[in-house]
Amino acid sequence: MSKGITSRAENYSEWYNDLVLKGGLADYSAVRGCMVIKPYGFTLWENMRDILDKKFKETGHVNAYFPLFVPKSLFEAEETNAEGFAKECAVVTHYRLKTDPENKGKLIIDPEAKLEEELVVRPTSEAIIWNTYKKWIQSYRDLPILVNQWANVVRWEMRTRLFLRTAEFLWQEGHTAHATKSEAVEETVQMINVYADFVENYMAIPVIKGVKSANERFAGAEDTYTIEALMQDGKALQSGTSHFLGQNFAKAFDVKFVNKENNEEYVWATSWGVSTRLIGALIMAHSDDEGLIIPPKIAPHQVVIIPFLSKNVEETQSMIDKANELKQNLSKLGIRSIVDSDETKRPGFKFAEYELKGIPLRVVIGPRDLANGVVEIARRDTKEKSTFPIESLQETIVGLLDEIQNNLFAKAKRFRDSHITEVDDFETFQKVLEEKGGFISAHWDGTPETEDKIKELTKATIRCIPLGNKKEEGKCVFTGKSSQERVLFARAY
Amino acid sequence: MSKGITSRAENYSEWYNDLVLKGGLADYSAVRGCMVIKPYGFTLWENMRDILDKKFKETGHVNAYFPLFVPKSLFEAEETNAEGFAKECAVVTHYRLKTDPENKGKLIIDPEAKLEEELVVRPTSEAIIWNTYKKWIQSYRDLPILVNQWANVVRWEMRTRLFLRTAEFLWQEGHTAHATKSEAVEETVQMINVYADFVENYMAIPVIKGVKSANERFAGAEDTYTIEALMQDGKALQSGTSHFLGQNFAKAFDVKFVNKENNEEYVWATSWGVSTRLIGALIMAHSDDEGLIIPPKIAPHQVVIIPFLSKNVEETQSMIDKANELKQNLSKLGIRSIVDSDETKRPGFKFAEYELKGIPLRVVIGPRDLANGVVEIARRDTKEKSTFPIESLQETIVGLLDEIQNNLFAKAKRFRDSHITEVDDFETFQKVLEEKGGFISAHWDGTPETEDKIKELTKATIRCIPLGNKKEEGKCVFTGKSSQERVLFARAY
Repeated sequence: MSKGITSRAENYSEWYNDLVLKGGLADYSAVRGCMVIKPYGFTLWENMRDILDKKFKETGHVNAYFPLFVPKSLFEAEETNAEGFAKECAVVTHYRLKTDPENKGKLIIDPEAKLEEELVVRPTSEAIIWNTYKKWIQSYRDLPILVNQWANVVRWEMRTRLFLRTAEFLWQEGHTAHATKSEAVEETVQMINVYADFVENYMAIPVIKGVKSANERFAGAEDTYTIEALMQDGKALQSGTSHFLGQNFAKAFDVKFVNKENNEEYVWATSWGVSTRLIGALIMAHSDDEGLIIPPKIAPHQVVIIPFLSKNVEETQSMIDKANELKQNLSKLGIRSIVDSDETKRPGFKFAEYELKGIPLRVVIGPRDLANGVVEIARRDTKEKSTFPIESLQETIVGLLDEIQNNLFAKAKRFRDSHITEVDDFETFQKVLEEKGGFISAHWDGTPETEDKIKELTKATIRCIPLGNKKEEGKCVFTGKSSQERVLFARAY
Repeated sequence: MSKGITSRAENYSEWYNDLVLKGGLADYSAVRGCMVIKPYGFTLWENMRDILDKKFKETGHVNAYFPLFVPKSLFEAEETNAEGFAKECAVVTHYRLKTDPENKGKLIIDPEAKLEEELVVRPTSEAIIWNTYKKWIQSYRDLPILVNQWANVVRWEMRTRLFLRTAEFLWQEGHTAHATKSEAVEETVQMINVYADFVENYMAIPVIKGVKSANERFAGAEDTYTIEALMQDGKALQSGTSHFLGQNFAKAFDVKFVNKENNEEYVWATSWGVSTRLIGALIMAHSDDEGLIIPPKIAPHQVVIIPFLSKNVEETQSMIDKANELKQNLSKLGIRSIVDSDETKRPGFKFAEYELKGIPLRVVIGPRDLANGVVEIARRDTKEKSTFPIESLQETIVGLLDEIQNNLFAKAKRFRDSHITEVDDFETFQKVLEEKGGFISAHWDGTPETEDKIKELTKATIRCIPLGNKKEEGKCVFTGKSSQERVLFARAY
């Protein structure tokens, strides 16, 4: 193929990288493990962010901003959390450079500018935030605190992948403080539902909501709720998490409040986040060997309009005018479109380019069609091409965008549903994992040891214990010990 | 005063801190020189950001995101820029912590996880961005690149002030690449005009547009355009800058393009930014001894509605209903309002609270007024209280918000205009600076040495050479050497 995209069958992970790079979403940078999010990728992120931000505000949250740095002594305070992240921490030790006396034009660290206490670049912000909440919370009247922040975080990963696992990434992290346990649990569940709603209804990716096993829980949480999506290669991708933190951080940072009965209590906490990793999920859930496929609701451009250009200057101008007119009419309906009237590129090149970029609809405006009162529209998802009457074009486009959105979700859901396999013995477990992939629904004896062993042997982990899981007597797929419910295993990103 | 705000006359800088902290805009943090932007302050920033972002997009820019870290070797590449920022750089040297074997529960830097090359936490992103642009630019067809990013940056300042000068701050930085010098200069000027428009018409702060002297120029720029505002204490505040970078970064990072004539040329660059510092300007331009005064166009809440609460439950409920109804009606007009029906606080307390927070309009809904078909509205800017007929309330509020916006600008402009003093001898220069403050319009011989000496003696710097400055023969206020134009001096934040 002229686009030079590796096919999924040939090499899935090359295919993924090709789409990110050639689709114009992101680029490698000079910093190990860090990426540049290019304008096209960033516009996608902005669209996602704006929808989520609105949902957060509708559920009563407000945004704030906390420091990038966490003094080491604060970072240590909640020990489980600190241990969980210690191995991935970028650490600032100095606050000044100076000119290198032995090397003109070069700089070296000024040894006299060593910090008294090292600063951790936040891998997550519970520590710095709960240290702040201590100042904000005295009485039950100060609760709840429902705060979110959009921020960059750094986790020094050894093996990185564009969007999926980068040393620096963008995310949002909600941090809430509550007077009661039940209110905090309710918040945790509410936010996993907000995430599921967003990922399913805007990103068109079906998810399974569930709770993590102890092994996979967020460091410092009592319970981690997750949404798990399935990629086309049969691997799962954790797409958002919401943590019930109990009183762990309140105890670590001594955050108490006086309740209505005038007694002091520790505050209850939650935290929840999604990140630019979601863009990785998006790519792997929908795209094909021709390029990206982006659901209309979050697509940077929903429609590309290509006027047919010929040597007839007058005709060409009239096609361009028609294209611009359509763009303006679509804009009034809130539809994001672009017009490509670049004369230096042939239509075939443009078609391939916008297929690669995953623009949901392509409208070609040509003189012959126009004379017949129609235009040609191609759908990116099904690659169908049809002509539609020009007089009802806007309604047609609105309808098609809707159809594409629904079709992408339905297709991803069919794939996901056909990749949940109930398995009752370990041999089949391994066979399904190798040959089919997807989620394996199996009994588990509930111990971390068994989960560890299964992971060691198969690279599969427990993705979640689905919410509202059916109770069912059974035997652990590995140890044969008794079990009361099935859990979902999968290999995962 | 019960609010405990220091008056401006008593201690201007205490007054400023009181407003930031007690007004709920920001808080100190556990990290030296870094602040927490609280929800009220962050909502203000969001409002400012959204307006600016729209203006950037309307002028053809797109957002992207570049890494937080800059490898030292890249940072060094543009030497003037590197030297300018070297003394303020936070530096990451390690990527892992480990448990302290001698101190249970504590963490130490893992000496084995030392980075081969130190990473500078970006104080500004020219280096990392131009290193990336090198990959993006081959031909004139790749130009212009019109990219902006919203990001956090770190400059390790020794003396910090909330919003005005913090080690970490939020900003936007535009970085554009052009085929010709004239196009780059045009972009530089366009963006300083965008900033001036925003600061004057949304923040209601008059600014003087000008060019910096060599001493005050951005490190690495050929020319720095600035907007300078005047604070109530007579000190200037640089509120936004736009830099024409010439080919300096293109040369440092070897970014060339093939022009239409098939010749290789270096690319021309600009960069431009405004930051959370603008919030400091906002506070000091408008607020008074009662608290913040925030212009309606960017105010988090434009109207606070306070229903009169009494022991008569039915009457109270009807007042609350009226308040909520008004809130909904205002919302339909795009007006941001809140209702305060907290029974635990007295009206007087609420009035003081919302004065402190700078909400432009306060509407009190009481049974007696209501019986007469009116409500009471108080303006934050003039503190006038009047009753207005309820049947035209929405129009009244729209009109009042407009009036407040205009009044704040007019008042700040009167103050600013009356604080530009033409001075022709150094004695008067010093006297005006001490007794009156503000901008001093004086002749200068054009040398950095004279500027340095004046700064040393008076703490005043050249804020700018105003755009469209009148040419006028004169003698330098300090050296008596000949000069062709006056420039603006001031003490500055």
